[in-house]
Amino acid sequence: MAGLIDLSYTIEAGISSYPGDDELKLYKNRFLENDMYNDTKLETGMHVGTHIDVASHIMESDQLISDYPLDRFIGKGILLDVRGQKSICMKESYLDMVKENSIVLLFTGFESLFGSDTYFMDHPVVEEPLADFLVERRVKMIGMDLPSPDHYPFGIHKKLLGNDILIIENLKNLERLLAVDDFEIIALPLKIRAEASLARVVARI
Amino acid sequence: MAGLIDLSYTIEAGISSYPGDDELKLYKNRFLENDMYNDTKLETGMHVGTHIDVASHIMESDQLISDYPLDRFIGKGILLDVRGQKSICMKESYLDMVKENSIVLLFTGFESLFGSDTYFMDHPVVEEPLADFLVERRVKMIGMDLPSPDHYPFGIHKKLLGNDILIIENLKNLERLLAVDDFEIIALPLKIRAEASLARVVARI
Repeated sequence: MAGLIDLSYTIEAGISSYPGDDELKLYKNRFLENDMYNDTKLETGMHVGTHIDVASHIMESDQLISDYPLDRFIGKGILLDVRGQKSICMKESYLDMVKENSIVLLFTGFESLFGSDTYFMDHPVVEEPLADFLVERRVKMIGMDLPSPDHYPFGIHKKLLGNDILIIENLKNLERLLAVDDFEIIALPLKIRAEASLARVVARI
Repeated sequence: MAGLIDLSYTIEAGISSYPGDDELKLYKNRFLENDMYNDTKLETGMHVGTHIDVASHIMESDQLISDYPLDRFIGKGILLDVRGQKSICMKESYLDMVKENSIVLLFTGFESLFGSDTYFMDHPVVEEPLADFLVERRVKMIGMDLPSPDHYPFGIHKKLLGNDILIIENLKNLERLLAVDDFEIIALPLKIRAEASLARVVARI
């Protein structure tokens, strides 16, 4: 089974954003009949829909996402099935599963609640021992079908990003990877001078 | 020689845009010291910097870039060295070089003029026989280190897009592919409901 699976939300007017973030706006502002071409204007922060955070999102750092080398965004994917856990814990089986330089995806099943208050305010969180393990194992990125791996005061964000593990938030379609043994993640942000970027995230089987 | 080459311009405040397009705005609007995190706001049309056009940019079509399957954006890359041509013509050697489903890149060298009036207003154009050949050969996309393959009234745009060949505009670093025999292009747009998208375009060797 070869192919590409899209793990990204569609960016569209009305897409839900994290409480406190500006609403994304997307509207046509050039029209074929009058302007000879169509164009669409996007107004958004960088933390809406499927996106990647780097350290400067939440800590003092001069490094922007445009500064990262491309190989940080492509790597062997590992899916951890963490459905049913409100608090996502470390498990011994991960010692064998998770390799250095891999991209670890947490499948919680919370995609089904995308856009609801529960999705944004009452989502599962990553426990510190699991974050410590991922830091020690030196993975490239961690991704999840959640808006965040933690709540205020964002200790897990700081631990991961402070150790240069990037975070992919708001993934979808992770259930399609349950039956897949071997896949690569290609998670390309825009090359943008910002602390994060909207991204297209793809699993390649 | 394995590796990844970034063919994308950095998206930053002040990046040059096509005459008549709105200027891209990029500015920080959440601040760690006051808001507990940093966020950056982007306001832009979809035709600034490195981006991909689909047919609805310039003709009547309901299909948006978010509707295209992912395999349209990934394929074997072919570099055509067309430096020194004001009018980029068909050549017999392309008959062997260009395969179905490939992604054809035109290297004009115009990157060195990026941002100037010459870059936007007096760039090389693709001749109709070359466009006809690419249509007949059924390539996936054509990319170039130019803002456009043509000028008003955009006959080459219409021929290519009307035959479902997508167009990647404003590529850079194409000279780095001159010495490369075999490479893949991964050109990922955002999954956005628009007639085009800013994109991260990568050559993988």
